[in-house]
Amino acid sequence: MMTTTSDPAVRNGVDRAALFATLDAVKANPDLARFQFRATNRWLTGTHSQGRIRGFYGAGAEDNTRIVDFVLDADHPRVLTGADSGPTPVEFLLHALAACLTAGLANIAAARGVTLTSVESTVTGDINLLGILGLSDEVRNGYEGIKVDLRVSGDAPDDVLRDLVERSRARSAVYDVLTGGVPVDVTVDVVS
Amino acid sequence: MMTTTSDPAVRNGVDRAALFATLDAVKANPDLARFQFRATNRWLTGTHSQGRIRGFYGAGAEDNTRIVDFVLDADHPRVLTGADSGPTPVEFLLHALAACLTAGLANIAAARGVTLTSVESTVTGDINLLGILGLSDEVRNGYEGIKVDLRVSGDAPDDVLRDLVERSRARSAVYDVLTGGVPVDVTVDVVS
Repeated sequence: MMTTTSDPAVRNGVDRAALFATLDAVKANPDLARFQFRATNRWLTGTHSQGRIRGFYGAGAEDNTRIVDFVLDADHPRVLTGADSGPTPVEFLLHALAACLTAGLANIAAARGVTLTSVESTVTGDINLLGILGLSDEVRNGYEGIKVDLRVSGDAPDDVLRDLVERSRARSAVYDVLTGGVPVDVTVDVVS
Repeated sequence: MMTTTSDPAVRNGVDRAALFATLDAVKANPDLARFQFRATNRWLTGTHSQGRIRGFYGAGAEDNTRIVDFVLDADHPRVLTGADSGPTPVEFLLHALAACLTAGLANIAAARGVTLTSVESTVTGDINLLGILGLSDEVRNGYEGIKVDLRVSGDAPDDVLRDLVERSRARSAVYDVLTGGVPVDVTVDVVS
């Protein structure tokens, strides 16, 4: 059927019916939108630690669909006295940003009936380590700036594709956190 | 030798001589502290994308010590119309924070002659998805708040261990970015 061809149930790998059903369910019960995500971490040696991600709370319940932990090693590179056993912590931030913009773009394009062909991105972050090395109080510890170069193709005119990316940026959780900041509370327990 | 026993060259897996040599080199030539980290990302399907991390610039040159890409899948969980092929983008932020505080703690403890026995942490982030779902303009897109619970043990009194954690927090690049925000510039290329 033409209708099915032009408006498929699954577009960009996104189940549109499930997406719209999710939106309707949350509209009817906004408490379903409250999520808590979590990561645990264990120091191994030097600057090498291992993170595990699995459980989260959301949609009114503790998730029980994830059946394995996601395991992520992190380390410093050799030039920063690490063993390079994983990406640096600050590199995970760049990855998170690219992944968030990309997932949002796929969802928004699917909702608006645009089929994407490809989405690729390069994210760079400039940082002056005089801050974290404790050698300057005028240089901040974190990135001075982050740049995202996103390359997209799909079955819509250029301005429509650009607008979809802009909508993804405007609703990106990671973009919002990285640009706006978030309160972080650190508590320490000394154990024996 | 007693001296070696009480002040080993390698403590907490950190090569103290290399650490101090790095600091001296950067003091002598502050341009060595300028780094650029990078991540690339490719959309696979739906909310599933794959990131790659390898090259970076730092210490005055393009790095050539990493010999493989770090590959990181990201996705949404099933309850958010994903296939759960990797952590969500926002979970990577929590992992990055734990890893950064932990690596900094190991380095700072090593520099100050404290041997750590264990460092474990749990990071939680609360987020109301009414923002990213486009159902409220009053709810922010990102986390409302992040909490880090860090558990540490080592061969120093409680207050010293707590002070080391505080020094790590005060010099953490990820903590700085997450709490203070950073300018993010997004450019889009439409390709055919």
